[in-house]
Amino acid sequence: MNSEHSLLNVAVVGASGYGGGELLRLLLAHPRVKLSCAVSQTYAEQPLYHAWPGLAHVTKMTFSRELGDASYDVVFLAQENGKAMKDAAALLSRGCKVIDLSADFRFKNSDVYAQWYSKHSSPELAAEAVYGLPELFREDIRGARLVGNPGCYPTASILALAPLLKTSTIDTSSIIIDAKSGVSGAGRAKFGLDYHYPEVESSVSAYKIAGTHRHTPEIENVLSSQCGAQITLSFTPHLMPMSRGILATCYGKLTRSLDTRELLDLYTEEYADDPFVVVCSDRLPATKHVLGTNACHIGLSVDTRTSRVTIVSVIDNLTKGAAGQAIQNMNLMTGLDETEGLLGGGLWP
Amino acid sequence: MNSEHSLLNVAVVGASGYGGGELLRLLLAHPRVKLSCAVSQTYAEQPLYHAWPGLAHVTKMTFSRELGDASYDVVFLAQENGKAMKDAAALLSRGCKVIDLSADFRFKNSDVYAQWYSKHSSPELAAEAVYGLPELFREDIRGARLVGNPGCYPTASILALAPLLKTSTIDTSSIIIDAKSGVSGAGRAKFGLDYHYPEVESSVSAYKIAGTHRHTPEIENVLSSQCGAQITLSFTPHLMPMSRGILATCYGKLTRSLDTRELLDLYTEEYADDPFVVVCSDRLPATKHVLGTNACHIGLSVDTRTSRVTIVSVIDNLTKGAAGQAIQNMNLMTGLDETEGLLGGGLWP
Amino acid sequence: MNSEHSLLNVAVVGASGYGGGELLRLLLAHPRVKLSCAVSQTYAEQPLYHAWPGLAHVTKMTFSRELGDASYDVVFLAQENGKAMKDAAALLSRGCKVIDLSADFRFKNSDVYAQWYSKHSSPELAAEAVYGLPELFREDIRGARLVGNPGCYPTASILALAPLLKTSTIDTSSIIIDAKSGVSGAGRAKFGLDYHYPEVESSVSAYKIAGTHRHTPEIENVLSSQCGAQITLSFTPHLMPMSRGILATCYGKLTRSLDTRELLDLYTEEYADDPFVVVCSDRLPATKHVLGTNACHIGLSVDTRTSRVTIVSVIDNLTKGAAGQAIQNMNLMTGLDETEGLLGGGLWP
Amino acid sequence: MNSEHSLLNVAVVGASGYGGGELLRLLLAHPRVKLSCAVSQTYAEQPLYHAWPGLAHVTKMTFSRELGDASYDVVFLAQENGKAMKDAAALLSRGCKVIDLSADFRFKNSDVYAQWYSKHSSPELAAEAVYGLPELFREDIRGARLVGNPGCYPTASILALAPLLKTSTIDTSSIIIDAKSGVSGAGRAKFGLDYHYPEVESSVSAYKIAGTHRHTPEIENVLSSQCGAQITLSFTPHLMPMSRGILATCYGKLTRSLDTRELLDLYTEEYADDPFVVVCSDRLPATKHVLGTNACHIGLSVDTRTSRVTIVSVIDNLTKGAAGQAIQNMNLMTGLDETEGLLGGGLWP
Repeated sequence: MNSEHSLLNVAVVGASGYGGGELLRLLLAHPRVKLSCAVSQTYAEQPLYHAWPGLAHVTKMTFSRELGDASYDVVFLAQENGKAMKDAAALLSRGCKVIDLSADFRFKNSDVYAQWYSKHSSPELAAEAVYGLPELFREDIRGARLVGNPGCYPTASILALAPLLKTSTIDTSSIIIDAKSGVSGAGRAKFGLDYHYPEVESSVSAYKIAGTHRHTPEIENVLSSQCGAQITLSFTPHLMPMSRGILATCYGKLTRSLDTRELLDLYTEEYADDPFVVVCSDRLPATKHVLGTNACHIGLSVDTRTSRVTIVSVIDNLTKGAAGQAIQNMNLMTGLDETEGLLGGGLWP
Repeated sequence: MNSEHSLLNVAVVGASGYGGGELLRLLLAHPRVKLSCAVSQTYAEQPLYHAWPGLAHVTKMTFSRELGDASYDVVFLAQENGKAMKDAAALLSRGCKVIDLSADFRFKNSDVYAQWYSKHSSPELAAEAVYGLPELFREDIRGARLVGNPGCYPTASILALAPLLKTSTIDTSSIIIDAKSGVSGAGRAKFGLDYHYPEVESSVSAYKIAGTHRHTPEIENVLSSQCGAQITLSFTPHLMPMSRGILATCYGKLTRSLDTRELLDLYTEEYADDPFVVVCSDRLPATKHVLGTNACHIGLSVDTRTSRVTIVSVIDNLTKGAAGQAIQNMNLMTGLDETEGLLGGGLWP
Repeated sequence: MNSEHSLLNVAVVGASGYGGGELLRLLLAHPRVKLSCAVSQTYAEQPLYHAWPGLAHVTKMTFSRELGDASYDVVFLAQENGKAMKDAAALLSRGCKVIDLSADFRFKNSDVYAQWYSKHSSPELAAEAVYGLPELFREDIRGARLVGNPGCYPTASILALAPLLKTSTIDTSSIIIDAKSGVSGAGRAKFGLDYHYPEVESSVSAYKIAGTHRHTPEIENVLSSQCGAQITLSFTPHLMPMSRGILATCYGKLTRSLDTRELLDLYTEEYADDPFVVVCSDRLPATKHVLGTNACHIGLSVDTRTSRVTIVSVIDNLTKGAAGQAIQNMNLMTGLDETEGLLGGGLWP
Repeated sequence: MNSEHSLLNVAVVGASGYGGGELLRLLLAHPRVKLSCAVSQTYAEQPLYHAWPGLAHVTKMTFSRELGDASYDVVFLAQENGKAMKDAAALLSRGCKVIDLSADFRFKNSDVYAQWYSKHSSPELAAEAVYGLPELFREDIRGARLVGNPGCYPTASILALAPLLKTSTIDTSSIIIDAKSGVSGAGRAKFGLDYHYPEVESSVSAYKIAGTHRHTPEIENVLSSQCGAQITLSFTPHLMPMSRGILATCYGKLTRSLDTRELLDLYTEEYADDPFVVVCSDRLPATKHVLGTNACHIGLSVDTRTSRVTIVSVIDNLTKGAAGQAIQNMNLMTGLDETEGLLGGGLWP
């Protein structure tokens, strides 16, 4: 075990939301991290376990009201959209590396951000920021001081489709993503009928269909970068009666004749060096397979009758889809082993 | 209230499965029906409430071991596949009208049945049987003595897509159906890890992807009949952590330029005379919207960026997807009002 | 079928809450009722199915903003506590019979109401009102113009224990009620972390323990009336990860030596004339056994080692625990058969 | 980090059941353990992730068919009752320390075991074995070579009540335990209607009421040991619609006048040196508060009207109720820090 002076000094802002809570859980167990500050206005001065009872036996640490002027090796921003773009510059100038879990730094082109979210106040930082999907941008992340952590739907969708785009194996006009998410994706502070227990239990629904969800341009941008052409695709999110997890079912026409086995080999090869991607050759993934882990499981099958492939990917939306991936990015940005602190097994059942 | 001699004399075979139980619930409340016999080997001689505790305050009736030689106006067969094709001929010859909830009489062409299920022992009856989807085949059903009640996934899928095929508004090679079902679709007697509570709770998964599920040819057959061309499509079933309900998300390319409003009008017109189809112009459907009812709710939206339409339909898999639709067929076959006994509101929440 | 002029003319105030919605579902299916008015400020002028999508195929009726001056045979008040005591007098003076689903008319002694709720503005009406538990007060209800419909926990608890108190079979100082409720018991409009889907899913908790829940005095009052002594008992409510249902596990010391079979016989006899109470001699009840029904199922067992009896009762909190019982009261108050409109079987699964 | 030769060499038998899977999850993350062997007949020769997909990114290790003759520092037995009593002697003679998660070594008196389970084949080992509840028997566990790991219900119940018995604060004839468990408590291989997803979802039930559950004598034995008198109590288990977690609501009469604050202080003092017991002075516990952790949270309140106390305790049945506690015992038996490998925070939501 390293002595304390070699630990990363880390802070989390927005520590009482679901993404923030998952950061706390993972960072408190990370062998190379000292969690020095957890900021929450709602729970300021209270112990972490008031917001997160599952930490009661772990730490007596309290929430801070503000980040203050102290310096940190890494600051995680886990607030609603529009906050990080205001906070990042000052943190960077103090020498902190910044990993933002909101949408603020996912788009290099601030016009796209403006179109789907709001006007961006730091377009130059947006242009500098690296999109934090290690499986596609590992080297850029290693050198970055500012990372925009991917959205949950985009993580599952992009990992499912990137191998086909990189290898020009899919008709880029044929892509449909039908995605299913647990309710924690909507956050911890958005109350109302839509997330009221009795209305959600034992029911599934679609929402923001036909390309109106904000994750659509994010997925299109990143996938376009993998094939050199502008992709327009169909993306449909669904709400599932479960707390955690995303399953993305992706469809597309193959551009050449490949059977299921050949395509599984292609995926296995593409992800050979990615410790968190598991290509499933002998089963189809379920969201429970990755509960509480940073893993993405991918299964697929080719339908020769239609020349279409169906790819199914699963992640935990709060781990690989948010906090776990953010820590994977931290590991890369700070020269740690990519898997450090992220090799816990999934909870079952 | 009618006197008893004007009631339909009805029997249910396979009355301790989920489809059979839903038939009992609905038939016991049907104002024009006398339920005379409920057959279950498992619960023979026991009161109905041993299998269905929710009937304890309704009836003291017991299960029968066999149907026997008595005559019935209508017999519902709700057994596993392969039974009804052996039983139907004798029942018909005794003058009973027969509604089969298994797959045995869903395919006029017994070669297709043989390819996906098993060799058919009554191909001539299969050729005679009418596919029991009233919204498409109402007049044929009125005149039928043998009806093959549609599968649950096909009911949701076909109702979502038929208006587009009838009106040649969709590219028939572009159709993808991503369907989500509650666990009761797997039946009440198939045990194992796949349906073991702790494995299913709070998890979603895909199964039999890439056109390998038996409902694929059923959907293709019926939709082909609506447009005069042989359709090949992609169908993916998913298992949801809920007991009841199906949501089908359907995708296709439009063959002409229509916006969402125009398409909603087209659906509203197509289903103007169908009492159980609700076209949702002001919201998207959720499975809870139809819980315990015979309704099918349909919403849709056109994505002008991709020229694709997304249609979302929901049914209760045990009601409109099985027992409710069977009773709708009984009403038509016996000259009752189509909605008789089927206008109960949905349970909420 | 009766012609329309013989139907009861009925109104519901508070028709967009869970109790109100269950009233609409049941009243729309009641063969002797004409639902003339459903009042909701939130959904005023909108169709019922905006609040209750499961009614979309049943009716095009819209919500009213106010009850107005029209006369009704029966008015159901299903609002939060404190409203009915203001509205009842005027309705009664117009000749309406009133059934209140709030707590306002459950206590004849307004001092008790004041102690647990707030000052009562109509103490004389409170003193007149009949407690609407037909199994105990059927004759009084028949003659009443104002009924206070019991709370959900009290209904399950009182039905479980009344036979022991009536027959002096239980030590009145030994009673403990451990009750478990679905989340709909908290209502449809109380949002927050406590009922936010991800926080409630797959978790159970206790709340308001040690006699602090408002249903404690209601249970004590009614049980005391059955044995002629003032009872003080322990009542603990728990929140379950389910939408509907209450299970009450009740404990007490027997005052004489009875075995399980003898006690089951005693219960069977006590409830011989009560169409909605099912004494379970061959199984223990589960909340799913009564889903969507007006039934109360009761099982029990004597532990000879401790001389204690354990009684388990289940109801659907929105049906027998609210709207169904209210309609049972309406039937009694208007001379209809007690079971009219309430013999639907339970939804399963 | 220690070099490998200082790691404990550990094996798990029964590694594909829920208790075994939780052992694998925790042991693979334990910094002082080398998991050398995981035995499962069902999955022999297959990778661990076939049984436990959540381990796919963690290890390529495979299941063994048998334990073989190799020596281990610690062997965990996680099989059904009746196996460990046959296997333990040989393992102990080879110098392995043995921790048994079945009921075989929970009763020093084999006559009691015989009465509730079956004839015991190793009564002398049963008499030697230490009951593995560290909060009560820490010193004995440190010196033990054979530990009987407590049942899940007993762990929650005993921790809730022991402080009152140790301090003679409760009337020992007044104790009632109303316990609620997730479905994983029934194991991974017991299929049937009772654990079939659609039957369990959104429903609660009681089972084995009135002192007939096998955990009754276990709880009575251990609590009796804390007060020097033979206790007879009422224990009622309930099945909850959730995968994991136990909540025990315990009732009893106080023998002296204490208010809630004084009793909380007593509990806080009694558990001052127990790292996994959290006394909750400012909230009541819910099972989600301990999900995936080795913690036990306890809340309580005194009802001065009845002189009764209500104590609510929660554990994760697979962690503190099984595998986590077994590892806590291993830590004690091998001289490691008691909390080693057990300080992970709970998953939320």
